[in-house]
Amino acid sequence: MHCISINGIQAEYLPVDDRGLQYGDGLFETIACVDSKLQFWEQHLQRMATDAEKLGISFPGEQYFLSDINNLLESIQAKSCVIKLILTRGTGQRGYKYSDRQHPTRIVMVKDWPNYRVDSSTSGVRVCLCKHTISVNPALAGIKHLNRLDNVMARNEWATEFDEGLMADVSGNIIEGTMSNVFGIKDQTLFTPSLIKSGVNGIIREQVLEFANSNDFNLKITDLSIDDFNTMDEIFLTNSLIGIWPVHQLGELTYKANEISKMFNTEIQRRMSEHAKTLD
Amino acid sequence: MHCISINGIQAEYLPVDDRGLQYGDGLFETIACVDSKLQFWEQHLQRMATDAEKLGISFPGEQYFLSDINNLLESIQAKSCVIKLILTRGTGQRGYKYSDRQHPTRIVMVKDWPNYRVDSSTSGVRVCLCKHTISVNPALAGIKHLNRLDNVMARNEWATEFDEGLMADVSGNIIEGTMSNVFGIKDQTLFTPSLIKSGVNGIIREQVLEFANSNDFNLKITDLSIDDFNTMDEIFLTNSLIGIWPVHQLGELTYKANEISKMFNTEIQRRMSEHAKTLD
Repeated sequence: MHCISINGIQAEYLPVDDRGLQYGDGLFETIACVDSKLQFWEQHLQRMATDAEKLGISFPGEQYFLSDINNLLESIQAKSCVIKLILTRGTGQRGYKYSDRQHPTRIVMVKDWPNYRVDSSTSGVRVCLCKHTISVNPALAGIKHLNRLDNVMARNEWATEFDEGLMADVSGNIIEGTMSNVFGIKDQTLFTPSLIKSGVNGIIREQVLEFANSNDFNLKITDLSIDDFNTMDEIFLTNSLIGIWPVHQLGELTYKANEISKMFNTEIQRRMSEHAKTLD
Repeated sequence: MHCISINGIQAEYLPVDDRGLQYGDGLFETIACVDSKLQFWEQHLQRMATDAEKLGISFPGEQYFLSDINNLLESIQAKSCVIKLILTRGTGQRGYKYSDRQHPTRIVMVKDWPNYRVDSSTSGVRVCLCKHTISVNPALAGIKHLNRLDNVMARNEWATEFDEGLMADVSGNIIEGTMSNVFGIKDQTLFTPSLIKSGVNGIIREQVLEFANSNDFNLKITDLSIDDFNTMDEIFLTNSLIGIWPVHQLGELTYKANEISKMFNTEIQRRMSEHAKTLD
Protein backbone atom coordinates (compact mmCIF):
# COMPACT_ATOMS: atom_id res chain seq x y z
CA MET A 1 0.00 0.00 0.00
CA HIS A 2 1.34 3.40 -0.89
CA CYS A 3 -0.78 6.46 -1.42
CA ILE A 4 0.07 10.13 -1.58
CA SER A 5 -1.69 13.43 -2.06
CA ILE A 6 -0.06 16.80 -2.78
CA ASN A 7 -2.14 19.90 -2.04
CA GLY A 8 -5.27 17.78 -2.11
CA ILE A 9 -4.59 15.97 -5.37
CA GLN A 10 -3.46 12.34 -5.53
CA ALA A 11 0.02 12.42 -7.03
CA GLU A 12 3.35 10.71 -6.51
CA TYR A 13 5.64 13.42 -7.89
CA LEU A 14 6.66 16.80 -6.53
CA PRO A 15 8.28 19.76 -8.35
CA VAL A 16 12.08 19.51 -8.05
CA ASP A 17 12.28 23.17 -7.02
CA ASP A 18 10.20 22.54 -3.91
CA ARG A 19 12.14 23.95 -0.98
CA GLY A 20 11.48 20.75 0.97
CA LEU A 21 13.89 18.97 -1.37
CA GLN A 22 16.26 21.88 -2.00
CA TYR A 23 16.86 22.80 1.65
CA GLY A 24 14.81 20.54 3.93
CA ASP A 25 12.69 23.68 4.38
CA GLY A 26 9.64 22.12 6.01
CA LEU A 27 8.07 20.00 8.74
CA PHE A 28 6.56 16.55 9.18
CA GLU A 29 4.31 14.54 11.49
CA THR A 30 3.97 10.77 11.80
CA ILE A 31 0.51 9.79 13.00
CA ALA A 32 -0.91 6.39 14.00
CA CYS A 33 -4.24 5.59 12.37
CA VAL A 34 -5.82 2.64 14.21
CA ASP A 35 -9.30 1.37 13.36
CA SER A 36 -9.91 4.50 11.30
CA LYS A 37 -9.01 6.75 14.23
CA LEU A 38 -6.16 9.26 14.20
CA GLN A 39 -4.38 9.03 17.54
CA PHE A 40 -3.44 12.34 19.19
CA TRP A 41 -4.64 14.15 16.07
CA GLU A 42 -5.12 17.50 17.81
CA GLN A 43 -1.70 17.27 19.43
CA HIS A 44 0.02 16.51 16.11
CA LEU A 45 -1.76 19.34 14.31
CA GLN A 46 -1.02 21.76 17.14
CA ARG A 47 2.68 20.89 17.09
CA MET A 48 2.88 21.34 13.32
CA ALA A 49 1.07 24.67 13.56
CA THR A 50 3.41 25.84 16.34
CA ASP A 51 6.53 24.69 14.49
CA ALA A 52 5.28 26.27 11.24
CA GLU A 53 4.92 29.59 13.03
CA LYS A 54 8.49 29.30 14.36
CA LEU A 55 9.80 28.76 10.81
CA GLY A 56 7.51 31.34 9.23
CA ILE A 57 5.66 28.76 7.09
CA SER A 58 1.91 29.35 6.57
CA PHE A 59 -0.14 26.58 8.19
CA PRO A 60 -3.04 25.54 5.96
CA GLY A 61 -5.42 24.53 8.76
CA GLU A 62 -6.86 21.27 10.05
CA GLN A 63 -9.68 20.91 7.53
CA TYR A 64 -7.30 20.65 4.56
CA PHE A 65 -5.24 17.87 6.09
CA LEU A 66 -8.35 16.04 7.33
CA SER A 67 -9.95 16.23 3.92
CA ASP A 68 -6.76 14.88 2.27
CA ILE A 69 -6.60 11.98 4.73
CA ASN A 70 -10.28 11.12 4.29
CA ASN A 71 -9.92 11.11 0.52
CA LEU A 72 -6.84 8.91 0.59
CA LEU A 73 -8.23 6.40 3.09
CA GLU A 74 -11.51 6.20 1.21
CA SER A 75 -9.70 5.23 -1.96
CA ILE A 76 -7.56 2.54 -0.32
CA GLN A 77 -9.85 1.24 2.45
CA ALA A 78 -7.11 1.02 5.08
CA LYS A 79 -8.26 0.84 8.69
CA SER A 80 -4.86 0.81 10.39
CA CYS A 81 -1.89 2.53 8.85
CA VAL A 82 0.68 5.27 9.30
CA ILE A 83 -0.15 8.79 8.13
CA LYS A 84 2.81 11.02 7.37
CA LEU A 85 2.10 14.72 6.93
CA ILE A 86 4.70 16.96 5.32
CA LEU A 87 4.42 20.73 5.10
CA THR A 88 7.10 22.51 3.06
CA ARG A 89 7.55 26.20 2.36
CA GLY A 90 6.62 25.44 -1.26
CA THR A 91 8.40 26.01 -4.53
CA GLY A 92 10.73 28.92 -5.10
CA GLN A 93 13.49 30.47 -7.10
CA ARG A 94 17.20 29.78 -6.49
CA GLY A 95 18.69 30.81 -3.15
CA TYR A 96 17.86 30.59 0.53
CA LYS A 97 15.70 33.74 0.50
CA TYR A 98 12.01 32.93 0.31
CA SER A 99 9.23 35.08 -1.03
CA ASP A 100 6.64 36.92 1.07
CA ARG A 101 4.04 35.11 -1.03
CA GLN A 102 5.12 31.48 -0.59
CA HIS A 103 2.36 28.91 -1.03
CA PRO A 104 3.24 25.99 1.24
CA THR A 105 3.17 22.42 -0.11
CA ARG A 106 0.88 20.05 1.82
CA ILE A 107 1.74 16.36 1.43
CA VAL A 108 -0.11 13.40 2.97
CA MET A 109 1.34 9.90 2.68
CA VAL A 110 -0.46 6.73 3.80
CA LYS A 111 1.87 3.86 4.62
CA ASP A 112 1.74 0.32 5.96
CA TRP A 113 2.20 -0.21 9.66
CA PRO A 114 5.90 -0.99 10.35
CA ASN A 115 6.99 -4.58 11.08
CA TYR A 116 7.84 -4.07 14.74
CA ARG A 117 8.27 -7.24 16.81
CA VAL A 118 4.91 -8.00 18.43
CA ASP A 119 6.35 -8.42 21.93
CA SER A 120 8.31 -5.14 21.89
CA SER A 121 5.96 -3.36 24.28
CA THR A 122 5.85 -6.26 26.74
CA SER A 123 9.28 -7.97 26.62
CA GLY A 124 11.15 -4.78 25.83
CA VAL A 125 13.61 -3.84 23.13
CA ARG A 126 17.36 -3.88 22.46
CA VAL A 127 19.01 -0.48 22.17
CA CYS A 128 22.52 0.61 21.16
CA LEU A 129 24.40 3.88 21.60
CA CYS A 130 25.00 5.43 18.16
CA LYS A 131 28.44 6.76 17.23
CA HIS A 132 26.97 9.52 15.03
CA THR A 133 26.44 12.61 17.16
CA ILE A 134 23.30 14.72 16.92
CA SER A 135 23.45 18.38 15.85
CA VAL A 136 23.19 21.05 18.54
CA ASN A 137 21.26 24.25 17.87
CA PRO A 138 18.86 25.88 20.32
CA ALA A 139 17.35 27.81 17.38
CA LEU A 140 15.93 24.59 15.87
CA ALA A 141 15.70 22.33 18.95
CA GLY A 142 12.34 20.68 19.51
CA ILE A 143 11.07 21.38 15.98
CA LYS A 144 10.05 18.35 13.86
CA HIS A 145 11.68 19.72 10.68
CA LEU A 146 12.86 17.93 7.55
CA ASN A 147 16.61 18.19 8.27
CA ARG A 148 17.03 14.57 9.37
CA LEU A 149 20.45 13.53 8.12
CA ASP A 150 21.58 12.89 11.71
CA ASN A 151 18.79 10.37 12.20
CA VAL A 152 19.59 8.68 8.87
CA MET A 153 23.29 8.33 9.69
CA ALA A 154 22.64 7.09 13.23
CA ARG A 155 19.93 4.58 12.22
CA ASN A 156 22.18 3.01 9.63
CA GLU A 157 24.84 2.01 12.15
CA TRP A 158 22.97 -1.27 12.68
CA ALA A 159 20.84 -3.61 10.60
CA THR A 160 18.38 -5.71 12.68
CA GLU A 161 20.40 -6.53 15.80
CA PHE A 162 18.85 -3.60 17.70
CA ASP A 163 15.39 -2.05 17.77
CA GLU A 164 16.57 1.51 18.34
CA GLY A 165 19.73 3.54 18.95
CA LEU A 166 20.32 6.46 21.32
CA MET A 167 21.96 9.61 19.99
CA ALA A 168 24.25 11.82 22.05
CA ASP A 169 25.46 15.33 21.28
CA VAL A 170 29.18 16.07 21.02
CA SER A 171 29.30 16.81 24.77
CA GLY A 172 28.00 13.29 25.53
CA ASN A 173 24.48 14.32 26.51
CA ILE A 174 21.99 11.65 25.43
CA ILE A 175 19.24 13.53 23.56
CA GLU A 176 16.87 10.92 22.10
CA GLY A 177 16.61 7.78 19.98
CA THR A 178 16.77 7.95 16.19
CA MET A 179 12.96 7.77 16.06
CA SER A 180 11.93 8.13 19.71
CA ASN A 181 12.32 10.07 22.93
CA VAL A 182 13.92 8.35 25.91
CA PHE A 183 13.08 8.21 29.62
CA GLY A 184 14.81 6.63 32.60
CA ILE A 185 13.49 5.79 36.06
CA LYS A 186 15.68 5.65 39.16
CA ASP A 187 14.54 5.55 42.77
CA GLN A 188 10.98 6.44 41.77
CA THR A 189 12.10 9.53 39.81
CA LEU A 190 11.43 9.92 36.09
CA PHE A 191 14.32 11.38 34.07
CA THR A 192 14.36 12.58 30.46
CA PRO A 193 16.88 14.64 28.48
CA SER A 194 16.41 18.37 28.12
CA LEU A 195 15.54 19.29 24.54
CA ILE A 196 16.62 22.92 24.83
CA LYS A 197 19.67 22.44 22.59
CA SER A 198 18.72 19.51 20.35
CA GLY A 199 16.13 16.84 19.59
CA VAL A 200 12.43 16.60 18.73
CA ASN A 201 9.67 17.46 21.14
CA GLY A 202 7.66 14.23 20.80
CA ILE A 203 3.89 14.00 21.21
CA ILE A 204 4.04 10.93 23.48
CA ARG A 205 6.90 12.52 25.45
CA GLU A 206 4.60 15.48 26.15
CA GLN A 207 1.84 13.11 27.29
CA VAL A 208 4.22 11.24 29.62
CA LEU A 209 5.44 14.52 31.13
CA GLU A 210 1.91 15.80 31.54
CA PHE A 211 0.82 12.57 33.29
CA ALA A 212 3.89 12.56 35.55
CA ASN A 213 3.30 16.19 36.50
CA SER A 214 -0.40 15.82 37.16
CA ASN A 215 0.28 12.80 39.40
CA ASP A 216 3.09 14.44 41.35
CA PHE A 217 5.56 11.88 40.05
CA ASN A 218 9.14 13.09 40.70
CA LEU A 219 10.41 14.40 37.38
CA LYS A 220 13.79 15.69 36.25
CA ILE A 221 14.34 17.14 32.77
CA THR A 222 18.08 17.59 32.61
CA ASP A 223 21.39 16.70 30.92
CA LEU A 224 21.87 12.92 31.08
CA SER A 225 24.95 10.92 30.00
CA ILE A 226 25.09 7.28 28.95
CA ASP A 227 26.52 6.55 32.44
CA ASP A 228 23.38 8.10 33.92
CA PHE A 229 21.21 5.79 31.79
CA ASN A 230 23.37 2.78 32.65
CA THR A 231 22.47 3.19 36.33
CA MET A 232 18.71 3.62 35.78
CA ASP A 233 16.28 1.05 37.20
CA GLU A 234 14.15 1.20 34.06
CA ILE A 235 14.43 2.85 30.65
CA PHE A 236 11.67 3.34 28.11
CA LEU A 237 11.24 4.86 24.65
CA THR A 238 8.28 6.77 23.26
CA ASN A 239 6.90 7.71 19.88
CA SER A 240 3.53 8.00 18.18
CA LEU A 241 3.63 4.56 16.56
CA ILE A 242 5.24 2.47 19.32
CA GLY A 243 3.57 4.27 22.22
CA ILE A 244 5.94 3.08 24.96
CA TRP A 245 8.65 0.44 24.53
CA PRO A 246 10.43 -0.66 27.70
CA VAL A 247 14.17 -1.15 27.11
CA HIS A 248 15.34 -4.70 27.84
CA GLN A 249 18.93 -4.18 26.77
CA LEU A 250 21.10 -1.07 26.41
CA GLY A 251 24.57 -1.89 25.10
CA GLU A 252 25.92 -4.65 27.36
CA LEU A 253 23.44 -4.08 30.19
CA THR A 254 20.03 -5.67 30.62
CA TYR A 255 17.04 -4.27 32.48
CA LYS A 256 14.46 -6.62 33.93
CA ALA A 257 12.25 -4.39 36.00
CA ASN A 258 9.69 -2.46 33.99
CA GLU A 259 6.83 -1.92 36.45
CA ILE A 260 6.79 1.86 36.15
CA SER A 261 7.24 1.69 32.37
CA LYS A 262 4.14 -0.54 32.34
CA MET A 263 2.17 1.98 34.36
CA PHE A 264 3.06 4.76 31.90
CA ASN A 265 2.28 2.44 28.99
CA THR A 266 -1.18 1.71 30.37
CA GLU A 267 -1.87 5.42 30.73
CA ILE A 268 -0.60 6.22 27.22
CA GLN A 269 -2.77 3.43 25.76
CA ARG A 270 -5.76 4.92 27.57
CA ARG A 271 -4.97 8.39 26.25
CA MET A 272 -4.52 7.06 22.72
CA SER A 273 -8.16 5.98 22.79
CA GLU A 274 -9.29 9.14 24.52
CA HIS A 275 -7.48 11.53 22.15
CA ALA A 276 -8.43 9.95 18.85
CA LYS A 277 -10.11 11.64 15.94
CA THR A 278 -12.68 9.41 14.25
CA LEU A 279 -12.58 9.77 10.48
CA ASP A 280 -15.78 10.26 8.48
CA MET B 1 15.22 30.00 -17.95
CA HIS B 2 14.69 26.90 -15.89
CA CYS B 3 15.76 23.45 -16.93
CA ILE B 4 16.12 20.23 -14.98
CA SER B 5 17.16 16.65 -15.56
CA ILE B 6 16.63 13.71 -13.21
CA ASN B 7 18.84 10.66 -13.76
CA GLY B 8 19.57 11.85 -17.28
CA ILE B 9 16.00 12.55 -18.32
CA GLN B 10 14.56 16.05 -18.61
CA ALA B 11 11.83 16.28 -15.98
CA GLU B 12 10.55 18.76 -13.45
CA TYR B 13 9.03 16.35 -10.93
CA LEU B 14 10.60 13.97 -8.44
CA PRO B 15 9.00 11.02 -6.58
CA VAL B 16 7.68 12.22 -3.21
CA ASP B 17 9.35 9.27 -1.46
CA ASP B 18 12.80 10.43 -2.52
CA ARG B 19 14.94 10.59 0.61
CA GLY B 20 16.19 14.01 -0.45
CA LEU B 21 12.74 15.40 0.34
CA GLN B 22 11.88 13.08 3.22
CA TYR B 23 15.08 13.61 5.22
CA GLY B 24 17.42 15.98 3.35
CA ASP B 25 19.39 12.79 2.70
CA GLY B 26 21.72 14.06 -0.02
CA LEU B 27 24.27 16.57 -1.27
CA PHE B 28 24.48 19.52 -3.64
CA GLU B 29 26.99 21.63 -5.58
CA THR B 30 26.53 25.09 -7.07
CA ILE B 31 28.78 25.61 -10.08
CA ALA B 32 29.46 28.72 -12.17
CA CYS B 33 29.18 28.12 -15.92
CA VAL B 34 30.77 31.08 -17.72
CA ASP B 35 31.15 31.17 -21.51
CA SER B 36 30.28 27.47 -21.65
CA LYS B 37 33.03 26.60 -19.16
CA LEU B 38 32.42 24.97 -15.78
CA GLN B 39 34.60 26.72 -13.23
CA PHE B 40 36.44 24.48 -10.75
CA TRP B 41 34.58 21.47 -12.18
CA GLU B 42 37.08 18.92 -10.91
CA GLN B 43 37.07 20.45 -7.44
CA HIS B 44 33.26 20.42 -7.24
CA LEU B 45 33.04 16.82 -8.43
CA GLN B 46 35.80 15.74 -6.06
CA ARG B 47 34.06 17.35 -3.09
CA MET B 48 30.74 15.73 -3.95
CA ALA B 49 32.45 12.34 -4.34
CA THR B 50 34.24 12.75 -0.98
CA ASP B 51 31.07 13.90 0.80
CA ALA B 52 29.05 11.06 -0.81
CA GLU B 53 31.54 8.56 0.57
CA LYS B 54 31.22 10.09 4.05
CA LEU B 55 27.42 9.67 3.90
CA GLY B 56 27.53 6.24 2.25
CA ILE B 57 25.79 7.47 -0.94
CA SER B 58 26.97 5.91 -4.23
CA PHE B 59 28.61 8.49 -6.46
CA PRO B 60 27.57 8.03 -10.10
CA GLY B 61 30.77 9.33 -11.67
CA GLU B 62 31.77 12.43 -13.61
CA GLN B 63 30.61 11.29 -17.06
CA TYR B 64 26.95 11.04 -15.98
CA PHE B 65 26.82 14.58 -14.61
CA LEU B 66 28.76 15.96 -17.60
CA SER B 67 26.43 14.26 -20.04
CA ASP B 68 23.38 15.65 -18.18
CA ILE B 69 24.83 19.17 -18.26
CA ASN B 70 25.73 18.97 -21.94
CA ASN B 71 22.25 17.77 -22.83
CA LEU B 72 20.55 20.52 -20.82
CA LEU B 73 22.76 23.34 -22.11
CA GLU B 74 22.38 22.13 -25.68
CA SER B 75 18.62 22.36 -25.42
CA ILE B 76 18.60 25.86 -23.92
CA GLN B 77 21.69 27.48 -25.51
CA ALA B 78 22.86 29.18 -22.32
CA LYS B 79 26.47 30.30 -22.27
CA SER B 80 26.59 31.69 -18.72
CA CYS B 81 24.42 30.27 -15.99
CA VAL B 82 24.39 28.51 -12.63
CA ILE B 83 24.50 24.71 -12.55
CA LYS B 84 23.15 23.09 -9.41
CA LEU B 85 23.88 19.40 -8.93
CA ILE B 86 21.91 17.41 -6.37
CA LEU B 87 22.69 13.83 -5.39
CA THR B 88 20.21 12.12 -3.07
CA ARG B 89 20.26 8.63 -1.64
CA GLY B 90 17.26 7.86 -3.87
CA THR B 91 13.77 6.63 -3.13
CA GLY B 92 13.00 4.33 -0.26
CA GLN B 93 10.46 2.88 2.07
CA ARG B 94 9.34 4.55 5.32
CA GLY B 95 11.93 5.08 8.04
CA TYR B 96 15.47 6.35 8.41
CA LYS B 97 17.05 2.97 7.56
CA TYR B 98 18.19 2.81 3.96
CA SER B 99 18.61 -0.25 1.80
CA ASP B 100 21.94 -1.80 0.80
CA ARG B 101 20.75 -1.45 -2.76
CA GLN B 102 19.85 2.25 -2.93
CA HIS B 103 19.99 3.81 -6.39
CA PRO B 104 20.96 7.46 -5.89
CA THR B 105 18.98 10.23 -7.59
CA ARG B 106 21.06 12.52 -9.80
CA ILE B 107 19.54 15.96 -10.43
CA VAL B 108 20.96 18.75 -12.58
CA MET B 109 19.33 22.18 -12.60
CA VAL B 110 20.32 25.03 -14.89
CA LYS B 111 19.46 28.47 -13.55
CA ASP B 112 19.89 32.12 -14.45
CA TRP B 113 22.87 33.98 -13.05
CA PRO B 114 21.78 35.77 -9.82
CA ASN B 115 21.17 39.54 -9.84
CA TYR B 116 24.17 40.50 -7.76
CA ARG B 117 25.12 44.20 -7.82
CA VAL B 118 27.74 44.66 -10.54
CA ASP B 119 30.17 46.56 -8.31
CA SER B 120 30.08 44.01 -5.47
CA SER B 121 33.55 42.67 -6.17
CA THR B 122 35.11 46.13 -6.47
CA SER B 123 33.23 48.44 -4.07
CA GLY B 124 32.49 45.68 -1.57
CA VAL B 125 29.31 44.45 0.08
CA ARG B 126 27.18 45.14 3.15
CA VAL B 127 27.05 42.32 5.70
CA CYS B 128 24.99 41.78 8.85
CA LEU B 129 25.36 39.39 11.76
CA CYS B 130 22.43 36.94 11.75
CA LYS B 131 20.51 36.20 14.93
CA HIS B 132 19.78 32.60 13.88
CA THR B 133 22.59 30.38 15.15
CA ILE B 134 24.15 27.65 13.01
CA SER B 135 23.97 23.98 14.05
CA VAL B 136 27.07 22.41 15.57
CA ASN B 137 27.99 18.82 14.75
CA PRO B 138 31.51 17.62 13.95
CA ALA B 139 29.95 14.52 12.34
CA LEU B 140 28.46 16.60 9.50
CA ALA B 141 30.77 19.66 9.51
CA GLY B 142 32.24 20.59 6.15
CA ILE B 143 29.78 18.46 4.15
CA LYS B 144 27.63 20.27 1.55
CA HIS B 145 24.47 18.31 2.45
CA LEU B 146 20.81 19.15 1.90
CA ASN B 147 19.99 20.01 5.54
CA ARG B 148 19.97 23.78 5.02
CA LEU B 149 17.24 25.09 7.30
CA ASP B 150 19.82 27.17 9.21
CA ASN B 151 20.80 28.99 6.03
CA VAL B 152 17.14 29.57 5.12
CA MET B 153 16.28 31.02 8.52
CA ALA B 154 19.39 33.20 8.65
CA ARG B 155 19.02 34.52 5.08
CA ASN B 156 15.45 35.58 5.72
CA GLU B 157 16.39 37.97 8.53
CA TRP B 158 16.87 40.71 5.93
CA ALA B 159 15.36 41.64 2.56
CA THR B 160 17.71 43.70 0.35
CA GLU B 161 19.45 45.99 2.83
CA PHE B 162 22.44 43.60 3.07
CA ASP B 163 24.26 41.42 0.55
CA GLU B 164 25.11 38.64 3.01
CA GLY B 165 24.83 37.72 6.68
CA LEU B 166 27.34 36.00 8.95
CA MET B 167 26.23 33.05 11.05
CA ALA B 168 27.64 32.27 14.48
CA ASP B 169 27.27 29.07 16.51
CA VAL B 170 25.71 29.15 19.97
CA SER B 171 29.15 29.80 21.51
CA GLY B 172 29.54 32.96 19.42
CA ASN B 173 32.06 31.57 16.95
CA ILE B 174 31.51 33.06 13.50
CA ILE B 175 31.40 30.09 11.11
CA GLU B 176 30.47 31.41 7.67
CA GLY B 177 27.98 33.48 5.69
CA THR B 178 24.59 32.08 4.68
CA MET B 179 25.99 31.33 1.21
CA SER B 180 29.72 32.02 1.58
CA ASN B 181 32.85 31.42 3.61
CA VAL B 182 34.45 34.36 5.38
CA PHE B 183 38.03 35.56 5.77
CA GLY B 184 39.62 38.41 7.70
CA ILE B 185 43.01 40.07 7.34
CA LYS B 186 44.83 41.75 10.20
CA ASP B 187 48.48 42.82 10.32
CA GLN B 188 49.24 40.83 7.15
CA THR B 189 47.77 37.61 8.58
CA LEU B 190 44.84 35.83 6.93
CA PHE B 191 42.21 34.49 9.35
CA THR B 192 39.27 32.17 8.65
CA PRO B 193 36.97 30.20 10.96
CA SER B 194 37.69 26.56 11.70
CA LEU B 195 35.08 24.30 10.10
CA ILE B 196 35.72 21.33 12.40
CA LYS B 197 32.39 21.70 14.21
CA SER B 198 30.13 23.40 11.67
CA GLY B 199 29.91 24.97 8.21
CA VAL B 200 30.58 24.06 4.60
CA ASN B 201 34.05 23.47 3.22
CA GLY B 202 33.79 25.82 0.21
CA ILE B 203 35.65 25.32 -3.07
CA ILE B 204 36.88 28.94 -3.25
CA ARG B 205 37.84 28.81 0.45
CA GLU B 206 40.06 25.81 -0.36
CA GLN B 207 41.65 27.74 -3.24
CA VAL B 208 42.32 30.77 -1.04
CA LEU B 209 43.90 28.57 1.64
CA GLU B 210 46.01 26.74 -0.92
CA PHE B 211 47.24 30.02 -2.44
CA ALA B 212 48.00 31.50 0.99
CA ASN B 213 49.92 28.39 2.00
CA SER B 214 51.92 28.10 -1.19
CA ASN B 215 52.94 31.79 -0.90
CA ASP B 216 53.90 31.59 2.77
CA PHE B 217 51.17 34.05 3.67
CA ASN B 218 50.57 33.99 7.44
CA LEU B 219 47.41 31.95 7.97
CA LYS B 220 45.34 31.18 11.06
CA ILE B 221 42.36 28.80 10.93
CA THR B 222 40.81 29.19 14.33
CA ASP B 223 37.77 30.18 16.42
CA LEU B 224 36.84 33.79 15.62
CA SER B 225 34.18 35.95 17.31
CA ILE B 226 32.35 38.96 15.87
CA ASP B 227 34.70 41.12 17.99
CA ASP B 228 37.65 39.50 16.20
CA PHE B 229 36.10 40.39 12.83
CA ASN B 230 35.31 43.91 13.99
CA THR B 231 39.03 44.56 14.49
CA MET B 232 40.15 43.14 11.13
CA ASP B 233 41.81 45.42 8.56
CA GLU B 234 39.93 43.72 5.72
CA ILE B 235 37.18 41.12 5.46
CA PHE B 236 36.16 39.17 2.38
CA LEU B 237 33.61 36.52 1.43
CA THR B 238 34.03 33.61 -0.98
CA ASN B 239 31.81 31.29 -2.96
CA SER B 240 31.73 29.67 -6.37
CA LEU B 241 29.47 32.28 -7.97
CA ILE B 242 30.78 35.48 -6.39
CA GLY B 243 34.44 34.47 -6.32
CA ILE B 244 35.63 37.02 -3.78
CA TRP B 245 33.57 39.90 -2.42
CA PRO B 246 35.38 42.39 -0.20
CA VAL B 247 33.23 43.51 2.74
CA HIS B 248 32.58 47.23 2.79
CA GLN B 249 30.30 47.23 5.80
CA LEU B 250 29.83 44.78 8.69
CA GLY B 251 27.08 45.88 11.05
CA GLU B 252 27.90 49.47 12.02
CA LEU B 253 31.52 49.34 10.91
CA THR B 254 32.92 50.15 7.48
CA TYR B 255 36.11 48.83 5.92
CA LYS B 256 37.86 50.90 3.27
CA ALA B 257 41.12 49.06 2.75
CA ASN B 258 40.85 46.02 0.51
CA GLU B 259 44.29 45.70 -1.05
CA ILE B 260 44.91 42.13 0.11
CA SER B 261 41.35 41.12 -0.74
CA LYS B 262 42.06 42.42 -4.26
CA MET B 263 45.23 40.34 -4.49
CA PHE B 264 43.33 37.19 -3.53
CA ASN B 265 40.53 38.13 -5.95
CA THR B 266 43.00 38.48 -8.84
CA GLU B 267 44.45 35.07 -8.06
CA ILE B 268 41.00 33.43 -7.77
CA GLN B 269 39.95 34.98 -11.12
CA ARG B 270 43.12 33.54 -12.67
CA ARG B 271 42.40 30.11 -11.21
CA MET B 272 38.79 30.23 -12.38
CA SER B 273 40.09 30.41 -15.95
CA GLU B 274 42.79 27.85 -15.33
CA HIS B 275 40.52 25.28 -13.66
CA ALA B 276 37.59 25.39 -16.07
CA LYS B 277 36.09 22.47 -17.91
CA THR B 278 35.12 23.35 -21.48
CA LEU B 279 31.83 21.76 -22.46
CA ASP B 280 31.49 19.90 -25.76
